[in-house]
Amino acid sequence: MSKKNAFYAQSGGVTAVINASACGVIEAAREYREQIGQIYAGQNGILGALREELIDVGEETVEAISALRHTPSGAFGSCRYKLKSLEENRAEYQRLIEVFKAHDIGYFFYNGGGDSADTCLKVSQLSKKMGYPIQAIHIPKTVDNDLPLTDNCPGFGSVAKYIAVSTKEAALDVASMCATSTKVFILEVMGRHAGWIAAASALAQQQQGDAPHIILLPEVAFDKARFLQKVQQTVTLHGYCVIVASEGAQYADGSFLADAGGVDAFGHKQLGGVAPTLAAMVKGELGLKYHWALADYLQRAARHIASATDVAQAYAVGYAAVEAAVAGKNAIMTTIVRGPAEQYTWSVGEAPLSQVANVEKNMPAEYISEDGFGISQAGRDYLAPLIQGEDYPPYKNGIPHYVSLKRQLVEKKLESEF
Amino acid sequence: MSKKNAFYAQSGGVTAVINASACGVIEAAREYREQIGQIYAGQNGILGALREELIDVGEETVEAISALRHTPSGAFGSCRYKLKSLEENRAEYQRLIEVFKAHDIGYFFYNGGGDSADTCLKVSQLSKKMGYPIQAIHIPKTVDNDLPLTDNCPGFGSVAKYIAVSTKEAALDVASMCATSTKVFILEVMGRHAGWIAAASALAQQQQGDAPHIILLPEVAFDKARFLQKVQQTVTLHGYCVIVASEGAQYADGSFLADAGGVDAFGHKQLGGVAPTLAAMVKGELGLKYHWALADYLQRAARHIASATDVAQAYAVGYAAVEAAVAGKNAIMTTIVRGPAEQYTWSVGEAPLSQVANVEKNMPAEYISEDGFGISQAGRDYLAPLIQGEDYPPYKNGIPHYVSLKRQLVEKKLESEF
Repeated sequence: MSKKNAFYAQSGGVTAVINASACGVIEAAREYREQIGQIYAGQNGILGALREELIDVGEETVEAISALRHTPSGAFGSCRYKLKSLEENRAEYQRLIEVFKAHDIGYFFYNGGGDSADTCLKVSQLSKKMGYPIQAIHIPKTVDNDLPLTDNCPGFGSVAKYIAVSTKEAALDVASMCATSTKVFILEVMGRHAGWIAAASALAQQQQGDAPHIILLPEVAFDKARFLQKVQQTVTLHGYCVIVASEGAQYADGSFLADAGGVDAFGHKQLGGVAPTLAAMVKGELGLKYHWALADYLQRAARHIASATDVAQAYAVGYAAVEAAVAGKNAIMTTIVRGPAEQYTWSVGEAPLSQVANVEKNMPAEYISEDGFGISQAGRDYLAPLIQGEDYPPYKNGIPHYVSLKRQLVEKKLESEF
Repeated sequence: MSKKNAFYAQSGGVTAVINASACGVIEAAREYREQIGQIYAGQNGILGALREELIDVGEETVEAISALRHTPSGAFGSCRYKLKSLEENRAEYQRLIEVFKAHDIGYFFYNGGGDSADTCLKVSQLSKKMGYPIQAIHIPKTVDNDLPLTDNCPGFGSVAKYIAVSTKEAALDVASMCATSTKVFILEVMGRHAGWIAAASALAQQQQGDAPHIILLPEVAFDKARFLQKVQQTVTLHGYCVIVASEGAQYADGSFLADAGGVDAFGHKQLGGVAPTLAAMVKGELGLKYHWALADYLQRAARHIASATDVAQAYAVGYAAVEAAVAGKNAIMTTIVRGPAEQYTWSVGEAPLSQVANVEKNMPAEYISEDGFGISQAGRDYLAPLIQGEDYPPYKNGIPHYVSLKRQLVEKKLESEF
């Protein structure tokens, strides 16, 4: 049997550590030269496969691949593109098979979140449904931390660390000025459906009374009166109040706070509108001076303050995906498994893709504090290990030295275009 | 002659390194025990002096003072409070003298920006105008980098580094997704009058075409048509466009872009409205998908990514202030002096406060690129050294281990209240 080539692609929103997973995949594939031939990466994710735009990873130096471990974002390009079902768009799958066949691809590694797991599952079924032999392995990645069957999702730990650190720093700033200046500070963070990122800000707390004083999760219905009461109480007690709000914070009827904000000068609804909406309430009803911040992409790109635990796990799930492939596995996702001991340990496991695709894991109720404005001890016990350790990138001239790959495309073999 | 005590206070917006200056002052004062008695710090800046709320620095351990070097924000509390002139409010100065006399204070160290330099100058004149012998030394601090007669202002280098690093990271994120997602990313940064902070984002550029592609400075009149043309050109050429905008970006008539934004649901003008205003233009006129971020306090509090050069300079200007005081100086500001060689060197100097107070240093025209959307080589040569080196704080449980002082107040000696 001749060696099959491998295809790797990045999918969906990128993270500070998705390239660490790519590094794990590629370094493992280079270890398993006996079993795996060439490694190709999709330019801009699965679109690269559909368009036959395959980056020849073999052209990249050992040093460049190694540097992926400390380089944020998607080095091969990512995309938001979900394959329809085989029944709905058979042509897309036929195209994939054409491209895979033309380049002798037998291994499919897909690095993404829930939607991508679904795509990966569909590819894994090509053998059975369309007679093309391929093994598809999913590598988890999402800052939203909402994939099931894995202890956490690579990418999340680093955002969590960024948010905890930023909350702590901004809170010190506000605390030192509150006697004569800003009393309320609001940080809006990612998380449209699950509040994991906002919850992680609680790790900034070291003792009673520490910021953040209020966390707004999508999982807890927003009650304006209770919120304003808590803000006022906090300002009275501590002199200031720090709030961390999920972009997906919502009222009991499911409507987003962000949608309650105004429209801009052009009549467009404002994106990322939770913080200004809350600020307006605080100013309008309590008359308190406020500031707010919107971290947006800064939070998920912040490799400079990545969690060492997250980087190690991202690398490991990538590496293990290749080991699973050469062991003959198909239709699985590599996972992170938490050890049973109180002292945090982890190992890599696997889960059937059929149980992963399209399942969203929200914050469980037992991780949320009784008043709904914070997290419980169980939540803290879950989150704390994920931000442990620093993994600083190298610096050159005062800024991180991130790698740019050559991204040389393999010559096309097909005449048809997608 | 008996030893006089020293008073130190933090003033105005805090920074990632103002406590490093405090550390320099206190460690120097402890070295000069022969000349300086007790060290008191104003609780919440000059208000602490007016209210006789003096923190007894002698109660803080050597370790705690040393940890100030890596702790952001104002450890003693800061305030926004500008003394009126002696003619306008003689009572305030009489109160200051009462408090200074009651606590035998002969040295006044004031750590702040332009307004604070003015206050410090007024205090320095108390000997001559009101017969109370005191030496007042100003220690520069402002993220705005707008003080004259010093090469740069402690606090600025660290914000500059944070903005350069964040711009680079967010740009990698946008670049990797732009084929199918966000095309335009806007980061709004501090700088209401001077564009230094926005300009520093240019340090993220390593080669032709690198982000940021457009920098909007308050010093360059905003021209909507030229801006939109440049955005479209950049997206056509590179696939995406990264914009860094000063909060003080303004039209030729001096009106702020931020004011052109909408009002929120409560009818309040939105703060920090440059980014959403630009985003609305980009979407409305070019139809491009955008994201934007507002770093707000995160940028000036970000001690986790402080510039080592900035930390060293902040400490040095604090230390030198004490040396100047024991050498009998009055009414000066310690400054940073750039060496003449191409290779960056710096030393500490001094400038007369009368030439510092109320003078604002904007970006000189020769630091701005010809098209006004970036910086020149001269600007780059000036800025680049200021972000050199990393100075990481220690971490505990995944977050920086910042110090909280005891802040024990000295017993009041006066019966009167302010």
